[in-house]
Amino acid sequence: MDHPSSPQGPSHPDDQDPGAPVRAGVPEHGRVPKYYAVKVRIDALIGELGESGPLPTERDLAERYGVARETVRQALRELLLEGKLRREGRGTVVAGPKVEQPLSMASYTEGVRKQGRRPGRRLIALDRIACPAPLAADIGLERGQPVWHMERVLLADDERVGLESTYVAVDRVPRLDRDFEPDSSFYAYLRDRLGVSFGGADERIETVLATPREALLIGTPPALPMLLIHRVSRDTAGRPLERVRSLYRGDRFSFTTHHGDGVRRGHD
Amino acid sequence: MDHPSSPQGPSHPDDQDPGAPVRAGVPEHGRVPKYYAVKVRIDALIGELGESGPLPTERDLAERYGVARETVRQALRELLLEGKLRREGRGTVVAGPKVEQPLSMASYTEGVRKQGRRPGRRLIALDRIACPAPLAADIGLERGQPVWHMERVLLADDERVGLESTYVAVDRVPRLDRDFEPDSSFYAYLRDRLGVSFGGADERIETVLATPREALLIGTPPALPMLLIHRVSRDTAGRPLERVRSLYRGDRFSFTTHHGDGVRRGHD
Repeated sequence: MDHPSSPQGPSHPDDQDPGAPVRAGVPEHGRVPKYYAVKVRIDALIGELGESGPLPTERDLAERYGVARETVRQALRELLLEGKLRREGRGTVVAGPKVEQPLSMASYTEGVRKQGRRPGRRLIALDRIACPAPLAADIGLERGQPVWHMERVLLADDERVGLESTYVAVDRVPRLDRDFEPDSSFYAYLRDRLGVSFGGADERIETVLATPREALLIGTPPALPMLLIHRVSRDTAGRPLERVRSLYRGDRFSFTTHHGDGVRRGHD
Repeated sequence: MDHPSSPQGPSHPDDQDPGAPVRAGVPEHGRVPKYYAVKVRIDALIGELGESGPLPTERDLAERYGVARETVRQALRELLLEGKLRREGRGTVVAGPKVEQPLSMASYTEGVRKQGRRPGRRLIALDRIACPAPLAADIGLERGQPVWHMERVLLADDERVGLESTYVAVDRVPRLDRDFEPDSSFYAYLRDRLGVSFGGADERIETVLATPREALLIGTPPALPMLLIHRVSRDTAGRPLERVRSLYRGDRFSFTTHHGDGVRRGHD
């Protein structure tokens, strides 16, 4: 193909953010649901208001755009799900950027601190269970051997932002229920108390909907898109360490990776 | 705290998958919306049916569980959004596992092949544009200098599964519009035609809702949760290479990372 230069092409004004959807998500045929046209305009308004800026009321927006309040409500629902807006008291304000969490490093505390927020954890349950068959290989046990299941709500500035289930062999951390402070870092505990250091992990990230139990524990709207990370980690000797299931609010978190310079792999 | 051993604890039967929600997502108080109770039962049924197994009709399911068809419909909607079911013709069948795509390696072709599926791409647009200000630093240009924007639909076995926007300086690949085959790998083109190899990348992954344009191009239900990956890559000499925005169906993809053994970083 050959293409004429279109330096001012409508899909790419000079301020077009390459991270934003092409044509602001409007199909080439130009037809979109009415609520979406309103969503695009509110999205632009969000940019003008800036973080924590208070959004006009549904009624004001409905008048401004000449649409029904239900149409505005649908646009706001999606902007809330995407984390561009957040409820504050009885009003709605522009949300801050998503927390960027380093993937693989898997350090919740560090990732949240980097964003200038205060990390915390709240213990939901610490149970001694019989190792389920699907877990055995991941943590180097036989089915039925004792395993700790520690479930914690993840906090950022006291806001509930995630839910984490950690599975670790009891024989690796026999006193976990006695001398571990649930609000602290499990890795710091392993390193400082037991001299065991994190050596590596395989992780898988996917998007899922919050279950009613998870929505209740994290305080999110039910069926909010979440980011789910499955992690199987090893210590520096390569021995199985833990299996972790971490669920994060999709409207509040993004995950970053840095693939080192000079690394060559088959890119086909 | 001290906790009694509960080897057969209801939340962890021997076959409990540590990757699944605790208590199948049912709150400790046991109360869930009726549609969710149905969803949990259909989810179990999905396990019995196995991949490609045909699901009973909405009417049959409504009768079986003694609920209204709308209740069944709501449960099916979520299972479809999560990629546990897929439409086939006029019926609904059990979907296969999500494609696992290696993150950072960013090799779409390789990731899809590993899953035994045939990768492909369909060109939507290849435009020469003036570099937008927010893009300039990422690809080592000044605002206004010529940039290629190549937009392609990503295919797996001819199924549309994603949408990719690649931004690269025209002076790096001046003949992109003439001698690049859009269905092939851009990295292979860079390496084989220009002797430029991928050296590293910074990536950020988040979940977003499909826009109407994206839903149309990928053929997904509107507002399906998607996985969005922002990538800024460098060549082996460390020079800026490209900025890529890759959108993948959240119901069809998951992304994996492998964090090498022996690597020590601050895990706090």
